[in-house]
Amino acid sequence: MSNDSLAFIGLDLGGTFLKYALGREDGKVLAKGKMPSRAQESRDKTFEVMFMAIAEMLEKAKSFSVHVAGMGVGSPGAVDFDHGRILGNTPNLPNWSDADIRGELESRFNIPVWADNDANLMTLAECRYGAAKGSRYVIALTLGTGIGGGIVIDDQLYRGARFSGSELGHMSINFEGPPCGCGCVGCIEAYASAPAIVKNYREKLANKHFPTPNPITTEIIFQHAKDGDLLANQVIDEICFYLGAAIGSLINIFNPQVVVIGGGVADAGDEFIQRIWQAVHGRAMEAALRGVRLERASLGNDAGVVGAFALAADCYKALS
Amino acid sequence: MSNDSLAFIGLDLGGTFLKYALGREDGKVLAKGKMPSRAQESRDKTFEVMFMAIAEMLEKAKSFSVHVAGMGVGSPGAVDFDHGRILGNTPNLPNWSDADIRGELESRFNIPVWADNDANLMTLAECRYGAAKGSRYVIALTLGTGIGGGIVIDDQLYRGARFSGSELGHMSINFEGPPCGCGCVGCIEAYASAPAIVKNYREKLANKHFPTPNPITTEIIFQHAKDGDLLANQVIDEICFYLGAAIGSLINIFNPQVVVIGGGVADAGDEFIQRIWQAVHGRAMEAALRGVRLERASLGNDAGVVGAFALAADCYKALS
Repeated sequence: MSNDSLAFIGLDLGGTFLKYALGREDGKVLAKGKMPSRAQESRDKTFEVMFMAIAEMLEKAKSFSVHVAGMGVGSPGAVDFDHGRILGNTPNLPNWSDADIRGELESRFNIPVWADNDANLMTLAECRYGAAKGSRYVIALTLGTGIGGGIVIDDQLYRGARFSGSELGHMSINFEGPPCGCGCVGCIEAYASAPAIVKNYREKLANKHFPTPNPITTEIIFQHAKDGDLLANQVIDEICFYLGAAIGSLINIFNPQVVVIGGGVADAGDEFIQRIWQAVHGRAMEAALRGVRLERASLGNDAGVVGAFALAADCYKALS
Repeated sequence: MSNDSLAFIGLDLGGTFLKYALGREDGKVLAKGKMPSRAQESRDKTFEVMFMAIAEMLEKAKSFSVHVAGMGVGSPGAVDFDHGRILGNTPNLPNWSDADIRGELESRFNIPVWADNDANLMTLAECRYGAAKGSRYVIALTLGTGIGGGIVIDDQLYRGARFSGSELGHMSINFEGPPCGCGCVGCIEAYASAPAIVKNYREKLANKHFPTPNPITTEIIFQHAKDGDLLANQVIDEICFYLGAAIGSLINIFNPQVVVIGGGVADAGDEFIQRIWQAVHGRAMEAALRGVRLERASLGNDAGVVGAFALAADCYKALS
């Protein structure tokens, strides 16, 4: 069977939505969709949603005359890649902490299934088809409600000894910093996640007795900064300083080729990336920094599903 | 030829001494020695010292009736493992920044040569024969004049995209911390290297207008602490706090099986290791910390040469 007639299904599970796609090994998305993940109801409901999404993509595969050779699933939490199941650490999916993803999906569809952490798969997507295409040593940070991380070493995802590694958002940049939701102190997530950015701006407004817009989002803060708002610019300078410190350390540790910044906050644009890059200088050793590029993630909202079918494509290739 | 009759030579180059050994693949040291490295004089002098050390070990090999199948060399700085040569970053060996170790030694002795960073090889030694034997995911910190680091992933040393990675001593633990010799800010090396420990104690004594013993070494500080000196104990508590913060982040990033603490400072003993371990708690995520052990390096001063011949043994095996 030629490569053109093979396709893979990718699922990206979140606390609110399940995103899904049918894609080819070359990264082309043939079809995609999105539905509520019902993760707050029960594990069975979430699996039902997955079954529906897969059935829809299998129908699409028929209409494109492609054969689905594998499925990849991205999920929050610690994912046992070897067995395709959740190992815990899923605070936003309360019924999901030991879900057997491979067992449930393979017994239903008889198609090979691989599962991995969602931040890992976004990183894989950027490596295979996005901002880090062609690089074999890549660090990714995903700036959103939390800060996720991914590590690619010699073209392979790093998963840690027990699938709980690459928590780059929980590297501490200040041992006397604010407490983080994870239980640690001074994590970069406590400084530069979307809620931390909003809190920073809110506090600056309150200190000046300025009125507080409601709601405040990171989009609004970045817009205010573009419009010349001094406090918003100050917030962004601070965020860039914090991210520069974190990325500097990561460069000293990993000496990567590319650092990718993704997630909703990175949608602020290329100027934001340039400001972070300026802040990295003086925070990384010259030898480790030489030749490193900082790039904005290029796959946007699709990165999760694209990474999921890329995982399936990678693993299928390794099998055959 | 049986494995018993094969041996490897390991060299560990430092700014002051060259240490060397003849060893077997099982880690047994058959012979060893040490001579001034003459690194301050010229590159040629240092190579001459290496030639003498190797000649001495080849004589020993004859007397043990073993065949030397390969040589490993550990050096400070960035070492191009693929080509066995130095890439720079050798402030304590001023004439060494582009030394062609493999070229010089292979053309002289006609025995295969591999070279790597010295902290990497100390890590390898602990993995193959020491405190981390049997573990495939290992992080090592070497506390001495500087703080060196080593990363073992799936039983292999991690070297970075351009052989400048695993500078774990230059992870920043405080973005507002003291400047580090490397040009960055708040590196763990600026808090917990031997000179930083001595400076900390000296300042505490001066603040209290206490007399300052001369010289002060970390050995003396640890001895004072054992004797009940409150300031010395306060210094050690702070060092453990800083190391706990750094190791916590490294556990979140790598989810290793073992973290090994080596170097002269670690000779302070197991109680020091226990105090560091207590400080790690609350600084690492529960999921990443589960099952991790903190161990004191067990090979002491031999780790460098043992790691060097272990590298040769590993690479020789991979060839054949």
